[in-house]
Order: sequence, then structure tokens, then C-alpha cells
Amino acid sequence: MNVLVEPDVHDVFARIPGFGFVQTFYNQDTSDLHDKVDFVACLGGDGVILHASNLFRGAVPPIVSFNLGSLGFLTSHSFEDYKRDLRQVIHGNYMRDGVYITLRMRLRCEIFRKGKAMPGKVFDILNEVVVDRGSNPYLSKIECYEHDRLITKVQGDGVIVATPTGSTAYSTAAGGSMVHPNVPCMLFTPICPHSLSFRPVVLPDSARLELKIPEDARSNAWVSFDGKRRQQLSRGDSVRISMSEHPLPTVNKFDQTGDWFSSLIRCLNWNERLDQKAL
Amino acid sequence: MNVLVEPDVHDVFARIPGFGFVQTFYNQDTSDLHDKVDFVACLGGDGVILHASNLFRGAVPPIVSFNLGSLGFLTSHSFEDYKRDLRQVIHGNYMRDGVYITLRMRLRCEIFRKGKAMPGKVFDILNEVVVDRGSNPYLSKIECYEHDRLITKVQGDGVIVATPTGSTAYSTAAGGSMVHPNVPCMLFTPICPHSLSFRPVVLPDSARLELKIPEDARSNAWVSFDGKRRQQLSRGDSVRISMSEHPLPTVNKFDQTGDWFSSLIRCLNWNERLDQKAL
Amino acid sequence: MNVLVEPDVHDVFARIPGFGFVQTFYNQDTSDLHDKVDFVACLGGDGVILHASNLFRGAVPPIVSFNLGSLGFLTSHSFEDYKRDLRQVIHGNYMRDGVYITLRMRLRCEIFRKGKAMPGKVFDILNEVVVDRGSNPYLSKIECYEHDRLITKVQGDGVIVATPTGSTAYSTAAGGSMVHPNVPCMLFTPICPHSLSFRPVVLPDSARLELKIPEDARSNAWVSFDGKRRQQLSRGDSVRISMSEHPLPTVNKFDQTGDWFSSLIRCLNWNERLDQKAL
Amino acid sequence: MNVLVEPDVHDVFARIPGFGFVQTFYNQDTSDLHDKVDFVACLGGDGVILHASNLFRGAVPPIVSFNLGSLGFLTSHSFEDYKRDLRQVIHGNYMRDGVYITLRMRLRCEIFRKGKAMPGKVFDILNEVVVDRGSNPYLSKIECYEHDRLITKVQGDGVIVATPTGSTAYSTAAGGSMVHPNVPCMLFTPICPHSLSFRPVVLPDSARLELKIPEDARSNAWVSFDGKRRQQLSRGDSVRISMSEHPLPTVNKFDQTGDWFSSLIRCLNWNERLDQKAL
Repeated sequence: MNVLVEPDVHDVFARIPGFGFVQTFYNQDTSDLHDKVDFVACLGGDGVILHASNLFRGAVPPIVSFNLGSLGFLTSHSFEDYKRDLRQVIHGNYMRDGVYITLRMRLRCEIFRKGKAMPGKVFDILNEVVVDRGSNPYLSKIECYEHDRLITKVQGDGVIVATPTGSTAYSTAAGGSMVHPNVPCMLFTPICPHSLSFRPVVLPDSARLELKIPEDARSNAWVSFDGKRRQQLSRGDSVRISMSEHPLPTVNKFDQTGDWFSSLIRCLNWNERLDQKAL
Repeated sequence: MNVLVEPDVHDVFARIPGFGFVQTFYNQDTSDLHDKVDFVACLGGDGVILHASNLFRGAVPPIVSFNLGSLGFLTSHSFEDYKRDLRQVIHGNYMRDGVYITLRMRLRCEIFRKGKAMPGKVFDILNEVVVDRGSNPYLSKIECYEHDRLITKVQGDGVIVATPTGSTAYSTAAGGSMVHPNVPCMLFTPICPHSLSFRPVVLPDSARLELKIPEDARSNAWVSFDGKRRQQLSRGDSVRISMSEHPLPTVNKFDQTGDWFSSLIRCLNWNERLDQKAL
Repeated sequence: MNVLVEPDVHDVFARIPGFGFVQTFYNQDTSDLHDKVDFVACLGGDGVILHASNLFRGAVPPIVSFNLGSLGFLTSHSFEDYKRDLRQVIHGNYMRDGVYITLRMRLRCEIFRKGKAMPGKVFDILNEVVVDRGSNPYLSKIECYEHDRLITKVQGDGVIVATPTGSTAYSTAAGGSMVHPNVPCMLFTPICPHSLSFRPVVLPDSARLELKIPEDARSNAWVSFDGKRRQQLSRGDSVRISMSEHPLPTVNKFDQTGDWFSSLIRCLNWNERLDQKAL
Repeated sequence: MNVLVEPDVHDVFARIPGFGFVQTFYNQDTSDLHDKVDFVACLGGDGVILHASNLFRGAVPPIVSFNLGSLGFLTSHSFEDYKRDLRQVIHGNYMRDGVYITLRMRLRCEIFRKGKAMPGKVFDILNEVVVDRGSNPYLSKIECYEHDRLITKVQGDGVIVATPTGSTAYSTAAGGSMVHPNVPCMLFTPICPHSLSFRPVVLPDSARLELKIPEDARSNAWVSFDGKRRQQLSRGDSVRISMSEHPLPTVNKFDQTGDWFSSLIRCLNWNERLDQKAL
């Protein structure tokens, strides 16, 4: 078995006697990383898994995530059981040969300028892509297309297109429903829309969305991918969004639905209230 | 080609000379109706389609629906074009041989008393099943199970389990997102919950839900199916809900997504507002 | 000092030696009760205060409320300190001569049939008046007037008109904002409206509202006052609502705003979440 | 009668023969402008009234506003009737001697750095003050105090403190209720809070709020006043907010409540839906 760690961490291991077997990889080119890696162990919160998602832009090996204290949505394994849990991932356990895996859909996002794809501007995101007005004083105006048909214009702080995994992050703060990761769909959630009748919409995973800054917008807008790589969109620019061919597999602690409802309650206090007493 | 109409309407036709060819069926037993019917033409609003859904408790033939004035979500064909549209349903048109169909998921609901299925209490619903407190002054308390695991307790006016088709009906009035009919899922939407942190949840179509009135509830509750067949649930009673094997196919006017967004705007004024002018 | 207890409880005291000094009153006529009572001590939850509000239909003496375990919005005094707290209500304490009081606005509600006041159908409510469809399968349709001008029609499960005190009860479950009891206003909150663009509205305490079942409504409706005295409204019936001349004074534990924010967090977990850590 | 126009417009009038009587004022110092002006006529949308509010930082004369096409919340007079309407403002009409006026509360906002007032950083706002994260990738963390007591921490995109006038602007986009301008209160509305149980709160006009960026915040934040004069808040900075002594009086077209409900429907399509037909 080979063990690879991230370059930063590798520098640390290099100074510890007896850890010479630990290898690393080049951050500059991770395009063949998935060929060498059978599974990934993440240590930390949800941010670490977003980071792993970003490393594997093509196929992604299964990810086991251990929380180090604070509990995230995606980090159901607790670190103190890491030996037992890793062993089960590799060898299975007495109850079953394998592990339960949730295949988490990702979204392929591509920036277009005046209708032409911009080189190098392709991102596979696990949570959400956001187009917003940033620090502009004016409402953003964003034209939203589905399969090249204008479906609506968003006027407000912006719009979120989220995966089910991302439904419990920014989208839910903006009023979106919480969607189980096994539902094949994408969420279209406006941010503070200046229309009373705007309501979040859930579309099939076959949707092909385009968010475009129209030429008559009062100002530019900004786009960000999983909360990172924020960049400006000028009038005429757009982001095209469709399901990625490469989902991200995460190893479950128990089963998908049990893990998910536990996370809702643990991370978001979903429907926590005192029980009404009988009369 | 044979033409069958509902028994009530048949009485009318019987008195009109030249309409002797029009046949009917027995309302008491519609269990083999789908064997005789190749497609159904509904005349009226969404209520007529719910009625058709109720007639076909097993397999359902494709449904073409013509609105008679007021526009519903499911009735995209306008009556004045009925000749052309029916001809296209039967023969196809110059562009294509067939018609676009949306397979609308239904939910199989079954009432249990003290854990035992009650005879005759099985319903396939197209929009939603609702458990509520009716006229009781007390909040209903409803235990919600998924695959026999308690996921939460609803304390409030009640709870809705809706199909994507029903997502734009009662569920959206209670704050649920609007879900495209091609997303295979069920919506779990609380009605006026007495918990600030309750939020609607979208579950996969593989979910198996049970809504149960616990023994320590302050009062009984009520259940209704597509807004009909309202009946009381006593303490210890429950409703089990899972995807029906028999979806309801509806013939689209254009394509699924175009029809759906048109309906959102036409029926619900979704995101209708004045366009912000350029500076 | 005279001590009066409710008739039911008086029967209990009558059997205990040494409690002969405890008096009672007649439930049938409490119209002059406020002349005899200087202050009221409530033992129990918020329901007991609603009960007291119902006893005093005219002027209301100040109310000190002791919770017996479960904490309510209005019951900030804990029972174990009752001796000290009652002494302070009567004599003041070392810091001040009196007590802080919140004057809680009540709403005067009156039922009209075909435009004529119905005898005996006048209610002063502390939380909210609700008009809803009860167990009717159809949406209720309720015309809403302010100073005899039609302002809107509610189509949905119903409508709530709440005081600030009631803003944290049913109104907040229906999506209304939480309003500090010192804001002189009434809340107009729809229940599951079938219109995406309906949003709760807050009106000045000078508003004079009328909720009317129109002649063309599909069915009757129901009205209830502080969750009690539920009765039917036929087509043509209405409820008129305006500020009562007789607010209900409650004795605060600390000061108004401190007590209120404590209650939001204690009773409703308002904005409870883990603190984000510094980087 | 003297006529003053803004300096920019005065340059235009100066070139038109016969308009020599038109005067102007110095933009640099408008502190005594309210002594010279009996009433203000605004031409344009709501933005022009916000501009007028900004000119008069102390007492404000009554404002008559004429919309030039697009209708705003505050601009109920239509330009084509300007002669009649201005005459009525000055002379009254056949029905009454004066005009109906709405006194619109403003909020006095002051920026503090490490607890000390910053010179020149005082603003009277008519709609809302907003503290947000701007383009920061991290959630803002804002401590909220009322009369020097910590009431809650906002973690999310930011927080709005709005007047009733501003309740139909950004606050309603963020989910706040719509509050009639005669209700003396301030709205405390979070923007996309990362807590399911956060809900907008309405406080009395006697509230004294402070929004503070704590020392352990992950990043700085931004503040803006009526959507303008955007500036950065560093860790330790805060904004103190209380009712201004100088409300802004606007001349109503009809009466306050009629104008307001008309605006809700005209500008926001409030509760616009098709009427349900009788059976």
C-alpha cells in the first residue's frame, strides 16, 4: 500500500524519521492523480472535502472523511475510530464485504465571453456556483437560460445553482429546500430577489443552465465556485452549468439516509424543539 | 375507434340522436378500464386530471387535457385546437411521429391501524397526501418514519408529502420549493410548524415514509388524498407512503421544461416583476 | 390582603384546615372582578395567562406569572422564587420602588352577521384571532377590509390577525415576523396562501380590520379567539377587529427587551447555532 | 414665492430666457436649507426622494413627489396632474384646508472605531442601513447589541436595519414583513443567515442598536446607508443606530393606508392572483 499526502504536509513528514515511505504529488498537475489513488482520507471539516473535490477534476476516488472536532455535513467519521473505520473501508467488516457509498453529483461550470468558451475556465463544483453583485450598489440582473431558452431574469443580490450536497449550505441560507444527496437534480435558488413571487426551483439533473449578464445590466457581476476562485463577469459574459460526468463518492458511516438526517439535526438543528406534552 | 365517456355524461349523449356509438363504463369497478382505453381526453381544469388519476388505480393510459378557459398546471392544451391536437396525438405531426409525454410519479398511500393494514384503504395520489389537525384546537403531533426509522416529529398544523406534480399546489403554499416533474423525488413539507428551524425536505423516490399519530398525541388527526377522501386518524393509526408502480403519463403541448416554466408564470406569476431599466 | 382563587381551586382549599381565609368569585359574571383584584398571580404556562385574559374582559390588573417547569413566553418568573418575587411586586425592592410592566395590547373582536352585530359575540384577545377553512376541502376565500376599504382577498388555509404578544405564537409558525410587545401594531399574516406573492403585513394599532366570508365563497369558514371558542362563519358573516381599550399588564422579570430576547432564545431557539471559529 | 432648484439643473435654467427668477443653493453646505424651503417637489422615482432625504440632514420640509413614468412606493402623484396637485398642496382643496402627510421615521446612524465616534460619519437614512460581507468569501460575523446588551450574532451575508419606509425595499427581499409607515418601529432583518432558526424581528422605535465587527471575525465587513456611501468596517468598528429626531414628511395622494396598499400591489404585485370561482 502506498501513502500519498499533500505537498505541504509531505515537507513535515520528511523531517520525521521512519516516515520515508510517505510520498506526495505535484500540485501543478493533478490530472492523473485519480489513476494512482484508490481512496482518499480527509482529515478536517467540509472545507477539506471541497478541497479534495477541487484536486480531482476528472474521476474521483472514494473519500473517507474524519472530522477533527467540529462536525460537518460530509464528515461523519469521527477521528478517534480511524483505525477501525479505515480497516473496514479496506477489508469490509463482519456484516458486509464493502462499504456504503454516496455518489455525490458535481456540476460542470464553464465561463463564456461573448458566447465563446474562455480557456482554462472550467470548474467541477460539489456545493454550488454563485453569481452575485458583489459590492455593487445596484441589483444584479441575470438572464437565466435552460437549453438556450430564457426562463427568467433574476433581479436581486444574485442566484445560486446548487447540487443536492450544496443544498444544505448557501442555498438553504437563501431559503432553498434541503435535498437528499440521492435525488438527481440541481437547485436554482435566488438570493434576496426583488420580486415577492420568486421561489426556489428544483430542476432535473439533465438541465443545462446558462446564467448571463445582459448587455443592458447596470453593472458587472461576480461568480464563485464552491465559495472560491471568485472572478468578475462583464456584460455579455455567462456561465454554463450542467451535470459533471464525474461525481464524488463519499463513504458513509451508516447508510445514506440515516447519515443525512443526523447531519441535518447535528449541523443545522433541523426541527429541534421541545416535545409537546400530553394533556 | 371506440369512444367511452363517464356514466353521467353518457346519460346526456343517450338523448342526442346520432351519438349512439358513444359508450360508457361502470364506475363501481374501474379495475380493468386501462385495458380498454388507449388514451384519455380530459376537458376542464387540474381537478379533472386528479379525477382521472383516481379512476385509474393501476396502470394509467396517456392523458391529453384541454382547458376550458381557466388555465391549470396540467392542462396545457387549449380547447379550440382540440381537433388538431387530438389528431397529432393519434397520428403524430409533420415534425415527429409521436408526442412528448411526462411520466408523472404517483404515491401509493395505505392506512394502518395499530400496525395492521386497513382493508380498502389504499390510494394512489398524484398531488399530495396531507395529515393535519383539522378543526382540533391543539397542534397535531405526527411522528415521521423513513424505512422504519424515526426521522422527526411534526408539531404544527400538519404535514404534506407531495409528488413533484403536487409541488406547485398545496406544498408551495406551505413554503415548499417548486420541483420539475422529471425529478424523481418526494417532498416532505410541514404546515405551519411550531419550530423556527423546520424547513421543507426533498427525499429520493426510493423513500418509504410513515406518518403516525402517536399514543401520547393530544388529539386525533385527519388525512386526505389529493384533497379528497378525508378521514380521521386515531392515536396509533398511520399512513405509509411510497412511490406507486403506476405513474400517470400526460401528453405535453411542447416539451416538458417549456410547458412547466410556462405554467409557473401563467398559474403562479412566478417571478413576475417589472424589468429594471438600464441607467 | 385578600386572596381570591378560581372556583375549582377554592373547592380544594375549602377542605384544607387553616385556609378558610381564601375566597373565590363567580365564574358566571366576572364583569366587576377587576374592581376587587389588585394583581393576579398565574401559576403555569402561557395558557394560564390566556385564561386570565379571558376572565378580565374589561380592565385587567397586573399579572405576575410563575412557570411550573416548562417555560413560556409570558411566564418569566420561576416558581421557586415566588416568595421573593411576590414581595417585590407588593413592596418594591432595594433598587426601585415599583416593578417594570409591559402593557400588552389586546384586540377587540366582534362577529357580524349580514352586517349586524351578533349579541354576545365580543371577544378581547391577547394572542390572535384566526379565520380558517377548518376541515373544508376548499380554500377559504376571505375578503379583508381596512376602514371599510377592501385591501385584499385571502385564498388559502386562512388568515391570522395577531397582537405583538401573539406574534411569537401561531403567526410566526405561518411565517410572520416576531414583533416586540412594545410596538403598537397588529400583524396580518396569511396561512398557506395560494399566491406566491402574499407576504405578512404589519399595520398600525389604529387599523380597523374586517374579515368577511363573501357570498360567492365555496364554503363556510371558522373563527377562533386565542385558539378557543371556535365557531362557524357563514357566507356574509364577518369579524371586525380593532385595538381593545383594555390592554393586559404583565410584570417583567427584568426589563422588557431583555425578557423578550431571552424568551425568543429559550422558547424558540431563535438564531441558535454554533459560533464560527476565527481562522 | 421663491423657487430653488438643484445646482446642476440651475445651469440649464440659466440658459433659458424668462427663468431668471429660478434660484439655487450650494451643495457643499445644505445645513440651513430647511430654513429657506417650505416644501420640496421631487420629480422622478424613489431614488430622488432618497436623494432629498440626504440633502436635509436636520429638519426636512414636506415633500411632494411626482413620478415620471415608472411608479415607486413613495411617488404617488402623477406628473400630468402637477398643476392641480401643487395648487392643492399650497392652497388646500374644496374638501379640506390642508393635505395628508405621512411622517416617515428616519434612522440616525453613526460609525464608531474602537468605541470612539468617527468625525463626520453620521447619516440619517430613510430606508435602511446594511452591514454585509461585500465580496469576502467568508460569512460575516456581526455582534448585535440593544442598549449595550448583546442580543445575537449574525452569521451570514449580513444584516439590515430598516425603517417601515424601507420595509418594502431590501428588507422584504431578505424575507422581512412589510410594515405600514405609521408603525413606530425598526426592522432587524438578517441576510441569508446560516441558521435555520433566524427570523426577522421588529423592534420598538426606542431601540438603540449597535452592529459590531468582533475582533475574532474572519474578515472585515462593509456598511452602506440607503444603498450609498459604502465603506469598510474593520474588526472592532461598529455602527450605532437609533431613531432620528428628524423624520421626513411626505404628502399623500389620498390617505396613508390607501396609498400604501396601492403601492404594495402596484410595485410588488402583493397577493395578485386569479380569483377562485364559485362552484
